[in-house]
Amino acid sequence: MSKVNVNKVVVAYSGGLDTSVIIPWLKENYDCEVVAFVADVGQGEEELQGIEEKAKASGASSCYIADLKEEMVADYIFPTLKTGACYEGKYLLGTSMARPIIAKAQVEVARKVGADALCHGCTGKGNDQIRFEGAFAALAPDLHVIAPWREWDLVSREECLDYLAERNIPCTASLTKIYSRDANAWHISTEGGVLEETWNAPNDDCWAWTVSPEQAPDQAETVTIKVENGEVTEVNGEKLTPYDALVNLNEKGVKHGIGRIDIVENRLVGMKSRGCYETPGGTIIMEALRAVEQLVLDKAAFEFREELGIKASHLVYDGRWFTPLCRSILAASDELAKDVNGEVVIKLYKGQATVIQKRSDNSLYSEEFATFGEDEVYDQSHAGGFIRLYSLSSRIRALNELKK
Amino acid sequence: MSKVNVNKVVVAYSGGLDTSVIIPWLKENYDCEVVAFVADVGQGEEELQGIEEKAKASGASSCYIADLKEEMVADYIFPTLKTGACYEGKYLLGTSMARPIIAKAQVEVARKVGADALCHGCTGKGNDQIRFEGAFAALAPDLHVIAPWREWDLVSREECLDYLAERNIPCTASLTKIYSRDANAWHISTEGGVLEETWNAPNDDCWAWTVSPEQAPDQAETVTIKVENGEVTEVNGEKLTPYDALVNLNEKGVKHGIGRIDIVENRLVGMKSRGCYETPGGTIIMEALRAVEQLVLDKAAFEFREELGIKASHLVYDGRWFTPLCRSILAASDELAKDVNGEVVIKLYKGQATVIQKRSDNSLYSEEFATFGEDEVYDQSHAGGFIRLYSLSSRIRALNELKK
Amino acid sequence: MSKVNVNKVVVAYSGGLDTSVIIPWLKENYDCEVVAFVADVGQGEEELQGIEEKAKASGASSCYIADLKEEMVADYIFPTLKTGACYEGKYLLGTSMARPIIAKAQVEVARKVGADALCHGCTGKGNDQIRFEGAFAALAPDLHVIAPWREWDLVSREECLDYLAERNIPCTASLTKIYSRDANAWHISTEGGVLEETWNAPNDDCWAWTVSPEQAPDQAETVTIKVENGEVTEVNGEKLTPYDALVNLNEKGVKHGIGRIDIVENRLVGMKSRGCYETPGGTIIMEALRAVEQLVLDKAAFEFREELGIKASHLVYDGRWFTPLCRSILAASDELAKDVNGEVVIKLYKGQATVIQKRSDNSLYSEEFATFGEDEVYDQSHAGGFIRLYSLSSRIRALNELKK
Amino acid sequence: MSKVNVNKVVVAYSGGLDTSVIIPWLKENYDCEVVAFVADVGQGEEELQGIEEKAKASGASSCYIADLKEEMVADYIFPTLKTGACYEGKYLLGTSMARPIIAKAQVEVARKVGADALCHGCTGKGNDQIRFEGAFAALAPDLHVIAPWREWDLVSREECLDYLAERNIPCTASLTKIYSRDANAWHISTEGGVLEETWNAPNDDCWAWTVSPEQAPDQAETVTIKVENGEVTEVNGEKLTPYDALVNLNEKGVKHGIGRIDIVENRLVGMKSRGCYETPGGTIIMEALRAVEQLVLDKAAFEFREELGIKASHLVYDGRWFTPLCRSILAASDELAKDVNGEVVIKLYKGQATVIQKRSDNSLYSEEFATFGEDEVYDQSHAGGFIRLYSLSSRIRALNELKK
Repeated sequence: MSKVNVNKVVVAYSGGLDTSVIIPWLKENYDCEVVAFVADVGQGEEELQGIEEKAKASGASSCYIADLKEEMVADYIFPTLKTGACYEGKYLLGTSMARPIIAKAQVEVARKVGADALCHGCTGKGNDQIRFEGAFAALAPDLHVIAPWREWDLVSREECLDYLAERNIPCTASLTKIYSRDANAWHISTEGGVLEETWNAPNDDCWAWTVSPEQAPDQAETVTIKVENGEVTEVNGEKLTPYDALVNLNEKGVKHGIGRIDIVENRLVGMKSRGCYETPGGTIIMEALRAVEQLVLDKAAFEFREELGIKASHLVYDGRWFTPLCRSILAASDELAKDVNGEVVIKLYKGQATVIQKRSDNSLYSEEFATFGEDEVYDQSHAGGFIRLYSLSSRIRALNELKK
Repeated sequence: MSKVNVNKVVVAYSGGLDTSVIIPWLKENYDCEVVAFVADVGQGEEELQGIEEKAKASGASSCYIADLKEEMVADYIFPTLKTGACYEGKYLLGTSMARPIIAKAQVEVARKVGADALCHGCTGKGNDQIRFEGAFAALAPDLHVIAPWREWDLVSREECLDYLAERNIPCTASLTKIYSRDANAWHISTEGGVLEETWNAPNDDCWAWTVSPEQAPDQAETVTIKVENGEVTEVNGEKLTPYDALVNLNEKGVKHGIGRIDIVENRLVGMKSRGCYETPGGTIIMEALRAVEQLVLDKAAFEFREELGIKASHLVYDGRWFTPLCRSILAASDELAKDVNGEVVIKLYKGQATVIQKRSDNSLYSEEFATFGEDEVYDQSHAGGFIRLYSLSSRIRALNELKK
Repeated sequence: MSKVNVNKVVVAYSGGLDTSVIIPWLKENYDCEVVAFVADVGQGEEELQGIEEKAKASGASSCYIADLKEEMVADYIFPTLKTGACYEGKYLLGTSMARPIIAKAQVEVARKVGADALCHGCTGKGNDQIRFEGAFAALAPDLHVIAPWREWDLVSREECLDYLAERNIPCTASLTKIYSRDANAWHISTEGGVLEETWNAPNDDCWAWTVSPEQAPDQAETVTIKVENGEVTEVNGEKLTPYDALVNLNEKGVKHGIGRIDIVENRLVGMKSRGCYETPGGTIIMEALRAVEQLVLDKAAFEFREELGIKASHLVYDGRWFTPLCRSILAASDELAKDVNGEVVIKLYKGQATVIQKRSDNSLYSEEFATFGEDEVYDQSHAGGFIRLYSLSSRIRALNELKK
Repeated sequence: MSKVNVNKVVVAYSGGLDTSVIIPWLKENYDCEVVAFVADVGQGEEELQGIEEKAKASGASSCYIADLKEEMVADYIFPTLKTGACYEGKYLLGTSMARPIIAKAQVEVARKVGADALCHGCTGKGNDQIRFEGAFAALAPDLHVIAPWREWDLVSREECLDYLAERNIPCTASLTKIYSRDANAWHISTEGGVLEETWNAPNDDCWAWTVSPEQAPDQAETVTIKVENGEVTEVNGEKLTPYDALVNLNEKGVKHGIGRIDIVENRLVGMKSRGCYETPGGTIIMEALRAVEQLVLDKAAFEFREELGIKASHLVYDGRWFTPLCRSILAASDELAKDVNGEVVIKLYKGQATVIQKRSDNSLYSEEFATFGEDEVYDQSHAGGFIRLYSLSSRIRALNELKK
């Protein structure tokens, strides 16, 4: 593949080893100006500290930093949560949900600086390349996309470090790194090392944020969460922005060892990978939302919400956020979420978040109806007719069989 | 509704207060012979002790007891588990799965004794009436069905006790019973009492089998489970029948407080109810099966299995076991389960069953493919083409927009 | 069942035999004032002529007539069409879509006149009773519902006619009526008579509106339809309201024998029925919409639209219009329909409506991409990578098998 | 991409221009022995005449011809029809269903002759490359795959003809070919030419098999089809093999202009294409099967069959025949098809196949139940209870709203 002509490229820059190499590599291989773009999605101060200087030291002509934290939680995470999406039954999509907003903000910078290309530092074996490029295709089909990991010959950290050293670009990255990690406000993922063999249990050091259930407090803690239109609006009586609510619940979750999962998942590129994910606050929020849904969604609506969850989990995982199908799914779940208002009390204890109390003004539960006495709304004699018709086709079919 | 003419009725008899009243009530109101049928589905020795005598003392002409334990686990529970069914995201369908096999065995007794009617002791507000009568419609559409709770005027335990006392029928049932419970080898359910208000947390006495996470051992325990064709065949290296495997895992689960859930669910009859369910061994088994599936099912197969699980959860909950649709769903999941072979190690600790190791000869996971180096099967340059085509419709659509 | 106390009831009045009997029957049996409500949903002038006088002659204290034609097409039919709903693969839901709007307008009259009950004339074996009462439950749960056909003893036309004669209520209904029919702007349905045996072919007189294909013109006619946001806005270049567009296309369809179907369908009450339906304009519209979708929906969106169509067909058929689930489905399809803009030419010939030309500014079809030459957007070498990853899990699975 | 080492390759050979070029091209570019494989899937005698000699004249060392006609209909088409699959609502999957069996037979030849590579002549923009290579991945992951159209530089018929002329390989192919066609026993597809612009109506010469409705007989013809287990077993009282039944119905369909469709469809590779397909006998068979289903499938089973149809349509179209998911779907539809037994009479007239009579011993339709009189099985008073419970959640929800 011959290289395309590029004048100015915006690269999604993290400050890590890979993207530090990418900047000089782009300049050398594409003979173009390189603009660094840094997305603050809550990955933490440590990663962001001095990042503009670092980018420039690597050769970037400028560095744009966008604070996407509130927008990510409000416009990407909360809508996804309304669908109930949980990939392959376990994964709360932490990395997947962050990619579209990063890509979108990156495109905005590209438009602003008049770039003609976009670049990301994702490897050629993972999902993130698809998520970035899927967003680019939908938002900036006219811009070139450069994916250095699919182009260059560098195959080890050592080679990357050598590459920088040869060019006198300072880098504090260590030669060895056991795990590959990705963090944002919602979660941190850990892959590699001991996890590469599925028969190995995760080590203690596979977990980056949460304490182990064994080390969590012996005393349970409860937290009260208010839910409005399928979104968390208060924690323990305090009105909070979406991001602040998440941060608050992360702290509690981390302390009690909440939200660890260890799964083998199907990547979109056709292979499986194994990862450990920590989603402390998110796990608590999911429990809260599902509990309010238990009160307010009728049987058919609940079943559809479950189906939407499966569909959304694949769409979000597969990087299809900016597609008509994803918008359609989100419109459906948003409609259902209009009833999802209420309050829950969740007990946090040694790795588990358990809803113990719940209530809602929209609750379809009624003590009066559910118990065994008489009531106005439900006449037990109705059940006879209901069952008769409900099972009528079975009866007719069985009568046919008897006749044969 | 005028009463039908009945000569001999087979009643599903539990030995409890309700069905003890039903026997004399049937004789008085239908002027017919009453045959008691007791299903042993693992509800425990206590309930079964002396039950034949009790049935006869209540007026039954005879009492048939059927040991359905192995058949229930092998032919009803295991097939359901292959679908991944979990009603409304939480409930492992313990009561639902037992009803069809009880009804089927009851019909068999009815055929044997030449009965012309079937009777159950379910209330007119619950799901069980539908599950029994749905099975009856499919298996014995020619037999009458009598549902005393929808016919008689008795509305309290006190009235039921008086009814028996007036007829000198001995009964050890107490006047007050806080909770309504249903147990079998798979689970025990608890409804009523404090649970009737969703804002009340469950009391300690809401839980019948399991210790609380707080009282569970401070030391975790691991258990190794072998899975063949989607079914548990060995526990800790010991080959066990389906029922024995369940009993074995129940013991472990009970000890570690595994498998408690507290939910508000949609009953089929249109109302919601709140229940606490304990499924200790079942929860462990579900984790084991899902973990092997993580290794062996490809992305599309996994997604379909999730969809089958939702559908099956409703079918089983709704008493549609003996329908063409249910058979179709089970045929589909059985086909997928042919690959579900492997071994998992599960850690039990304070209420949680966590898979920490897993392996399978059918595993689609390969360390070689998943890691970042080169390999024979996966060429990173393929990803560029994949992504381009994968996102092609997004690109075309976006190019259209640019043109406008 | 003891009768409820009712002061004033609003009855859905058609002017036919059944509802003419219902008015005096209600007054006699409920000792209440009866208000007639007539919905004009395009059933035709003949049925509406002099209907107010007729209602009053039957004993109604007043008669409200609501023209619902435009609203029905715009707010009930068009949204349903966006989902692609076609019940059991054939039925375009003509009767089903009209029921919710009639029930809603009836409730509005009840509120206006301060009624405390609602009444419909649907039989106890059909779907319409559920559609009416489903709407009443959602819109007026506080009002009583009276369904005379499930209460009274009249079982034949003769008895109904006698009932009116005894009371000197004039009625022009004939003693025998071969077919049971229901008409509105969208369709006319025919049941009964020769159709009751599925092995009988429909007679010529089973069809009320359309000519037979044999009698249709030997010369084909074409019609051009403009579609905007999934709705028909122009016919042959003329801007038309939804209702007028339907009327226009009905005329053309009737002339060419378009839109006849003859099916056995599953009623919600558990039995099957056989009906002949004529939907001349509707069939043309469906073809037009599906053709534009072919141009603008991507593969995944198209598949979801098909799934929405199945779900919506059941929801609409089952009378679940005013439910959160239905609103959610409609929100999803409405989102997809935003791209459904374009123009089609349809050929009408002897029973068939065939799209022969189609175009759209949103078309994802591009001659340039689809043909075999080179282009900017699609590089054939991409396909190799795509296929490799697309089939990777098959390859890994097969390699596993080879190893065994 | 450097070329792989290949000793002996089996090429799917059609005798057309493309595959005639491929044989010498493979020998020159891979320096290997080339074995031709010809699949007889009912494409017609013309294409097969003298094909062995032609293959050898092009340089093939040997030529294997496999008669797959009966197997294709029995094991690929009939199972697909049980799902009701119809891609994007229109396309009966004629080309898609043939590809897996051709690929499978090709692999069998490769094993027999000890080949180490497989080759097909599909272009890099279509679906067939994926169908072939998807099958190869599942059945022969150890063999190399060569797709010349993605490798070579030939881009026109002229260049292909020159290529052969330079090598003195005889070829009767013409320089210009307006349409691209693919035929087998089930269908013939036509692409290209005037069809490349969607606003063009198809020309008369776009249709290869069927007469136009206008030219079809003015007299309708009826045909009686017997269906057993979802498969056609008799036509007009004559027991026929699957393939013979298809041939018989093709003749009738061709004569009456049955089975023409003209659609724009989504290819799996992300672009749309436009094609005209003729499936004369298949269209008649689909009508027959769907009609019997109307009689025997209950509401829930019918809905699931519709869902299976959508899923299967994508799986078959996308070349996923040999996957666990496809097997699972087919197992589900096969289970439902066990009830699909019956007989239908279909009227063929000017482009339309219309079922006018149908019956089945498994029919759930009963005149007795469906009409308005009393019966044993259905008591109209049951409907009241049914509706009450069916709409209970709507009622509770609406009562909540009233309270607010």
